Amino acid sequence: MRPRIHDDDRLAIGLDIGGTKIAAGVADAGGRVVERVPAVPCPSDQAAILKAVSVLVEELHARNPGTVAVGVGAAGLVHWPEGRIRTAPNTAYRDLPLRRLLQEATGLPALVDNDANAACWAEYRKGNSASYMAFITVGTGVGGGLVLADRLFRGRTGIAMEFGHTIVDPHGAERCGCGVVGCLEPLASGRALGRYGGAAAAAEPGGTLATLAGGPGRVTGETVSAAARAGDPAARAQLERLGHWLGIGIATLVNLFDVELVVVGGGVAEAGELLLAPTRASFARYVTAAAHRELPAIEPARLGPEAGWIGAALLALDQDEPAPGREHREGPGGGA
Amino acid sequence: MRPRIHDDDRLAIGLDIGGTKIAAGVADAGGRVVERVPAVPCPSDQAAILKAVSVLVEELHARNPGTVAVGVGAAGLVHWPEGRIRTAPNTAYRDLPLRRLLQEATGLPALVDNDANAACWAEYRKGNSASYMAFITVGTGVGGGLVLADRLFRGRTGIAMEFGHTIVDPHGAERCGCGVVGCLEPLASGRALGRYGGAAAAAEPGGTLATLAGGPGRVTGETVSAAARAGDPAARAQLERLGHWLGIGIATLVNLFDVELVVVGGGVAEAGELLLAPTRASFARYVTAAAHRELPAIEPARLGPEAGWIGAALLALDQDEPAPGREHREGPGGGA
Repeated sequence: MRPRIHDDDRLAIGLDIGGTKIAAGVADAGGRVVERVPAVPCPSDQAAILKAVSVLVEELHARNPGTVAVGVGAAGLVHWPEGRIRTAPNTAYRDLPLRRLLQEATGLPALVDNDANAACWAEYRKGNSASYMAFITVGTGVGGGLVLADRLFRGRTGIAMEFGHTIVDPHGAERCGCGVVGCLEPLASGRALGRYGGAAAAAEPGGTLATLAGGPGRVTGETVSAAARAGDPAARAQLERLGHWLGIGIATLVNLFDVELVVVGGGVAEAGELLLAPTRASFARYVTAAAHRELPAIEPARLGPEAGWIGAALLALDQDEPAPGREHREGPGGGA
Repeated sequence: MRPRIHDDDRLAIGLDIGGTKIAAGVADAGGRVVERVPAVPCPSDQAAILKAVSVLVEELHARNPGTVAVGVGAAGLVHWPEGRIRTAPNTAYRDLPLRRLLQEATGLPALVDNDANAACWAEYRKGNSASYMAFITVGTGVGGGLVLADRLFRGRTGIAMEFGHTIVDPHGAERCGCGVVGCLEPLASGRALGRYGGAAAAAEPGGTLATLAGGPGRVTGETVSAAARAGDPAARAQLERLGHWLGIGIATLVNLFDVELVVVGGGVAEAGELLLAPTRASFARYVTAAAHRELPAIEPARLGPEAGWIGAALLALDQDEPAPGREHREGPGGGA
């Protein structure tokens, strides 16, 4: 039932516009990296972002004249299929019609999607893959993408699968960057891990966490992961706390979407089993009717931080197909 | 983009097997009721359920020889497309291959789906309708169905959209019938309303609620709704409490599925605006990026308690189509 995906030598430029940096490169339709450029810092005003993106695209296009499309994965709410970025925390753009601007500037067909959607598509195409899969990214924030019946699911307007905004603790104390109290993100992100770690270090100022960070006030998610890998019980307890919340969010996700695979990526997921084992335990505790169903696997992402721009390039090429997923859609039965 | 749906005179038998009763009738492909029979109590053992279903189908088939299919909506987890009922709270069946048994007994093509899916499809076809819509039923329990890109969404194995098991209060006090602590159902169902009302009546033994029920211990969801309609502030506060939780669940649903319409049905929804107004307020408070998106409408269901069996009949006829949704699936772009 997999859609027919052409693994040919057409090229696309891919970009990943995040809160802090822009990653870019050129990939072919098989997802092979043809060229990558060093990530550049993401400017803080909209005109400068556009300028940086244009320069990157122009350079990559000049060096790779076989390029037939441009794909962008961008943090924030991205209106589909217009590729208009409506809003994004930590970035300057507001209601930016990036797809149109890119097409005008380059003369190439462009695709602009959410960054987690792009990374999800890369993982589906080149990494851990299933016909019904959720991709979750745990970094500074928490995001996600979904493949249903072998197609990227975007909802009606492109803003589906705002996984970090699953409401899991509405009467809790943490306010999300989006303004709502109760979202998963402030409980299960890298930033949350830093906060948990800071509190643990303050409670034990001579402990591994505080020492490693150079003071309780300087603990970050990375410090916690490093201390956990070094075997520090206090640091491991914080990853368990993160996994507790992540498992709750995944339980809701599986109860609603009935996927067969959940892939966890992003910087915090590099902690591996130290995060995944408590996540699985929490998931099994909270998913409904666990005894009456096959539980989906919760596995680490195979692709690393390049998944965003590679996935954006692949989406741009798959969009360019006369009919990505056509075989599937033409089938008379089953499907989403 | 709507799938082509034939509004013709083919007939199907529809059944709705709930926890307490079985409703049945015959409808045509336009969803028009051709015959309905009085609901019968649902027996408490599996053999008796099968017997009751067989008798109903046989009688309806005999009186309506033009019947070409049988559709069943059943409470519980229903494996799709096998139509095997894996488990259901409050009913006797366990791993019952109902679709196969019905086909063998009747010689007609049969379809067995979750009861909320069937009601959702009836609402989509004949009631409040949108290409991306969620249907929520608030009765004894809380259930739901989803239409994405004009197709009923069932997930990989048929058990998607277990909306009552959205985890909204994992550190709370209420244990769900499924065994998990944190599910929406024990906080937003008719049973929860009865519990809330009972506590309110106990706090005010001479109040409207207690009087109407004939004692604080005898308050049910229905009593609370009746007292609220009569203007009792204590009863209205309980519907507001239900709406608070329902809005939280809907916020997660909309954050994940990006639907344009949420339809609320089921017995408790007959309270109308007394429930829907607080639900909308809570939803607007908890949905992410409310200022940057068009908020979906939250509206009452147009169809009543017959939606289950009518939707099951319609699903059976739409399944019988060579390609329900084919036009949509053949389109080159968009979609789920």
